[in-house]
Amino acid sequence: MHFASDNAGIAHPTVIQAIVEANEGYALGYGQDDLTKAAVAQVRAAFEAPEAAVYFLPTGTAANALALACLTRPYETIFCAPMAHIQEDECGAPEFFSGAKLTLVGTEDKITPKALRAAIDQCVTRGFQGVRPGALSLSQVTEFGQVYTLDEIRALTEIAHKAGIPTHMDGARFAHACVALGVSAAEMSRQSGIDAVSFGATKNGCLGVEAMVLFDPARADELEARRKRGGHLLSKQRFLSAQMLAYLIDDLWLTLASQANVKAAALAKQLSEIDGVSLAYPCEANMIFAHFSRPKWDTIKVSGAKVTLVSEESDQVMLRLVCDWALPEDDIERFLKLLR
Amino acid sequence: MHFASDNAGIAHPTVIQAIVEANEGYALGYGQDDLTKAAVAQVRAAFEAPEAAVYFLPTGTAANALALACLTRPYETIFCAPMAHIQEDECGAPEFFSGAKLTLVGTEDKITPKALRAAIDQCVTRGFQGVRPGALSLSQVTEFGQVYTLDEIRALTEIAHKAGIPTHMDGARFAHACVALGVSAAEMSRQSGIDAVSFGATKNGCLGVEAMVLFDPARADELEARRKRGGHLLSKQRFLSAQMLAYLIDDLWLTLASQANVKAAALAKQLSEIDGVSLAYPCEANMIFAHFSRPKWDTIKVSGAKVTLVSEESDQVMLRLVCDWALPEDDIERFLKLLR
Amino acid sequence: MHFASDNAGIAHPTVIQAIVEANEGYALGYGQDDLTKAAVAQVRAAFEAPEAAVYFLPTGTAANALALACLTRPYETIFCAPMAHIQEDECGAPEFFSGAKLTLVGTEDKITPKALRAAIDQCVTRGFQGVRPGALSLSQVTEFGQVYTLDEIRALTEIAHKAGIPTHMDGARFAHACVALGVSAAEMSRQSGIDAVSFGATKNGCLGVEAMVLFDPARADELEARRKRGGHLLSKQRFLSAQMLAYLIDDLWLTLASQANVKAAALAKQLSEIDGVSLAYPCEANMIFAHFSRPKWDTIKVSGAKVTLVSEESDQVMLRLVCDWALPEDDIERFLKLLR
Amino acid sequence: MHFASDNAGIAHPTVIQAIVEANEGYALGYGQDDLTKAAVAQVRAAFEAPEAAVYFLPTGTAANALALACLTRPYETIFCAPMAHIQEDECGAPEFFSGAKLTLVGTEDKITPKALRAAIDQCVTRGFQGVRPGALSLSQVTEFGQVYTLDEIRALTEIAHKAGIPTHMDGARFAHACVALGVSAAEMSRQSGIDAVSFGATKNGCLGVEAMVLFDPARADELEARRKRGGHLLSKQRFLSAQMLAYLIDDLWLTLASQANVKAAALAKQLSEIDGVSLAYPCEANMIFAHFSRPKWDTIKVSGAKVTLVSEESDQVMLRLVCDWALPEDDIERFLKLLR
Repeated sequence: MHFASDNAGIAHPTVIQAIVEANEGYALGYGQDDLTKAAVAQVRAAFEAPEAAVYFLPTGTAANALALACLTRPYETIFCAPMAHIQEDECGAPEFFSGAKLTLVGTEDKITPKALRAAIDQCVTRGFQGVRPGALSLSQVTEFGQVYTLDEIRALTEIAHKAGIPTHMDGARFAHACVALGVSAAEMSRQSGIDAVSFGATKNGCLGVEAMVLFDPARADELEARRKRGGHLLSKQRFLSAQMLAYLIDDLWLTLASQANVKAAALAKQLSEIDGVSLAYPCEANMIFAHFSRPKWDTIKVSGAKVTLVSEESDQVMLRLVCDWALPEDDIERFLKLLR
Repeated sequence: MHFASDNAGIAHPTVIQAIVEANEGYALGYGQDDLTKAAVAQVRAAFEAPEAAVYFLPTGTAANALALACLTRPYETIFCAPMAHIQEDECGAPEFFSGAKLTLVGTEDKITPKALRAAIDQCVTRGFQGVRPGALSLSQVTEFGQVYTLDEIRALTEIAHKAGIPTHMDGARFAHACVALGVSAAEMSRQSGIDAVSFGATKNGCLGVEAMVLFDPARADELEARRKRGGHLLSKQRFLSAQMLAYLIDDLWLTLASQANVKAAALAKQLSEIDGVSLAYPCEANMIFAHFSRPKWDTIKVSGAKVTLVSEESDQVMLRLVCDWALPEDDIERFLKLLR
Repeated sequence: MHFASDNAGIAHPTVIQAIVEANEGYALGYGQDDLTKAAVAQVRAAFEAPEAAVYFLPTGTAANALALACLTRPYETIFCAPMAHIQEDECGAPEFFSGAKLTLVGTEDKITPKALRAAIDQCVTRGFQGVRPGALSLSQVTEFGQVYTLDEIRALTEIAHKAGIPTHMDGARFAHACVALGVSAAEMSRQSGIDAVSFGATKNGCLGVEAMVLFDPARADELEARRKRGGHLLSKQRFLSAQMLAYLIDDLWLTLASQANVKAAALAKQLSEIDGVSLAYPCEANMIFAHFSRPKWDTIKVSGAKVTLVSEESDQVMLRLVCDWALPEDDIERFLKLLR
Repeated sequence: MHFASDNAGIAHPTVIQAIVEANEGYALGYGQDDLTKAAVAQVRAAFEAPEAAVYFLPTGTAANALALACLTRPYETIFCAPMAHIQEDECGAPEFFSGAKLTLVGTEDKITPKALRAAIDQCVTRGFQGVRPGALSLSQVTEFGQVYTLDEIRALTEIAHKAGIPTHMDGARFAHACVALGVSAAEMSRQSGIDAVSFGATKNGCLGVEAMVLFDPARADELEARRKRGGHLLSKQRFLSAQMLAYLIDDLWLTLASQANVKAAALAKQLSEIDGVSLAYPCEANMIFAHFSRPKWDTIKVSGAKVTLVSEESDQVMLRLVCDWALPEDDIERFLKLLR
């Protein structure tokens, strides 16, 4: 019963197979191989961005940090949500790579237009003594499992662009959001005013690969230089590319994300009907945040089920449960049974 | 006929198999899994350093940059050879991660004690206006394919330690050097005064993994923090660890390096007997640097053989030829035949 | 009627005279001169810290950033108030010099022990993915003109030290706080658990000089190196030292701060008795934050009086008024008269 | 007899007087005062660059580092002479502020077109693994007291611009070079292909002020932000501006530099006629580099004359002697007498 994280699961057999098949003959290193060319083409096709600068990276933190470094200057600030992964979980990587400062927008899990406008205004009025507006970064899916609608994304990117700053989407669970909204990668990003995407694959069936997509190809050389300088240019690039290729072909990425979302939805629905359990946030993708009474929490701890403790109060706790594409139905059933 | 680089070859089937087998069930991310514990134990055993801080990274540049960041402070300088990989081929990664400056020692491919002493003295006499001595970094195997003997290493690390600075070994081809010298990992590093090692595996049979080994465990938390901050903490760590484990078990790493060295030695010997070809450096590991007359160079170009052009003169060129463990004997034969 | 800032006023004649007298004969640069030795001794005496590392800098931002760089590592975080100068008014200098991240503590102008404990706990529980606790920075006087009592300072430094992190005091108005509390420099800093002080002089009678005081001399060389690397080592150091010396001799620094505080207290009292004016914060040093009705605000604007607009509401505004030591009594009277 | 450095001397009375006079009434801080406006206008006039971005800084290291940070990106390299001040004497400040790497050009004190072309070519051929060409930095006067002619400057800036990189002039002794060449500030910089100048004043009669001049005003806001972020924005800016204004009015800067050069020329001529003394470099400005026999060196040491020991050999030493504008003729005479 493993609900701790979607990076604890296995890679999809198709992805493993792709790696096995990629291990054939010589191929020039550092991305000059055919598999990489093919994978880049696939990503561009998925985003309907034939010109986009596309690079494959071993971690989402690298993708976020490098994208933000290309979008900002060291004396600027990046606007993000208070619980954003780039703020809480990357040990300062975005600041390290970009030199920029993070400004936390509002107090909600999802950034609101009002809060964003206020944060940018405050930054501007601060004047020459303060950092300059630099970029907006949105997490899609958010840290608490919510999904921005296209309208919500457009409202925010419009405010950012009016303020003259580019926009970044941390898409560690990009696929889960696309499935949740029933939209394409292009619709959820470029066509909604997003300038750069960290396109996650590791949490959804790959061993370890993320694509950084910059829709403005003018930044390609800067991005290449920063990738190398960051130690993120893998020599045997073909093994990253092979994963990404398998991930995109036949929409495997959407199929797997859909499996994960369906499982999470079902689990959330069942949980919400159990006494002593209540959802803290609507389950919109593959993550569930729910309050559990102390007795239920004790039950879970003894059961050995892997979950994440988010916060504790005297009478209840908030837990995070994540469903990955491969989560066995039986585990969900067993987990529900012991809670009933 | 692929002599361009040892990162253009395939991974060893055992390593691929290890990845396939690692893809089983759930495992906590970020290195909290059993495979990682086992791989760390293997590395510590190989270096006879049961306490060492050991981390697995996707690239050698990350290993070098993170190691040097842990060994130095931003206002110090790292002494290295003029052609060192950290100076020439990492787009400033060591400076980016450490903040330190590189000081080029002498003009030779191999650092000499005399040149190192002079460089450190000059730095010290520079006084408060200049950067402070920070660390020594040695490439073993060197950029031109040479191998430092244990005596040579000890002479240099002794000078460094007398000057109060720690020592780093860029071991992208660490295995090839061990085989060339017939010594153990411990003898060539810790027992010879090396404080930190970038232990390469990617160029010798793995898909993409390097171990960073810091013999002083006191630096473990700093290293962990810098790794995360650098975007180099892979969530599905087990797939890096599985490679390293397979690489070390039954001395696969030494077997493969030995194959590569033997092929290179044979090729070098044959080449040196061909008119219009002369070795530029002794072939001590798996790299050959040789001068080829213009006609020979033309022959190679039309043959489609993959080699690296190092430098050009009117009547000859210098080429780099690298042999990886899997290089087919036939390719070597064909290459020699067309040159004869 | 100039209440905009205490850096808009003149330098004290004694300080100017000291510069004139310092301009005599040759003196070795970079702080190797006698005036610098004398000024360092004066600062150490004032702080009763005969061993302290003391350096003179041209700006408070340099002092803050360099002190914090010496107290933290790049993967750590600095705890400060939401409105702290290092957060709002230094364009990212502390992050630039230290590499560390700022964590805003609570929502108050003054940091409370409860909020500090919570912030540190949250940082620690975040674990290996987040930045590590690095240092605590207090502004004395605070951005809103309040003064931490010795008990308040000790309560906070105790929490910091229990958490294993050092403490910094941004003392741009250090003198005004000492006068307000009636305590010595040593009592308000070292004896209250402060490890490093940015000792301001520019806002209180000097042309431009701040002293950075690190009570742990072990950090002296690091500080010197960072100062040079930051471009903050003035060659003709004697002209900074002469200012600091004149500032400390015969307690000129306390005399001037006392003049400023007295003027501010009188002005605040008078203002608070005027209809349409109300203090937003108690006036504890030389800064006044007060709400003014729209009509009063209009009166001030037409009067040409220089003040700082902090925030606006429909019916009132909040203004900042600063009194420097040289502010003419007549200006205060005229200002009050036109408001009455 | 003080020949150690031109930063050991006094400031010119006119400059001191300007500071005294500037200490009158209130003036907005951070450069919003009238003196600053006037000083900026003077600098623009001197450089015949009415649009130029001009900022006053407390040190030459700050000017160099900030200028280079505006001209380069972190993954680029700055080409400079092996002995350049930015390489040897600034503790890594240029790398710290710009993130860029320094590439040493050739082995001479003065950069030659051939060496520059070779260095740029090598950098370009290095390809995606290496840093990119970023900027060229020239020291005028050089570290060994030589002066680039306009033709030499143009030849180098042309190569740089052809390679697409901007050019910087470290003008710590800019005035001495102008006088030596008998050219204007504009001719020696903008009109010779220089894009940014560190215009020194501290070594030639001021207390501590340098102007950074960027001829492309588009970079003004970046420069302002970096200045603040670097802790180099002085609040009481008027006291820097007053110095610069006095320095430029009535060509004081040229008068003083001329005095220094004349003294150095005379001293050099006399020295060269003494047995056991020989010039190491032609004396073209206000610095003399000469070899002294051991006996002469002993004489100097006992005399208490302040000079700088550059290098030592068994039978002779190389010394640096600097003449500042205020150096007493008598000191020169006494020094020569004891050597004869």
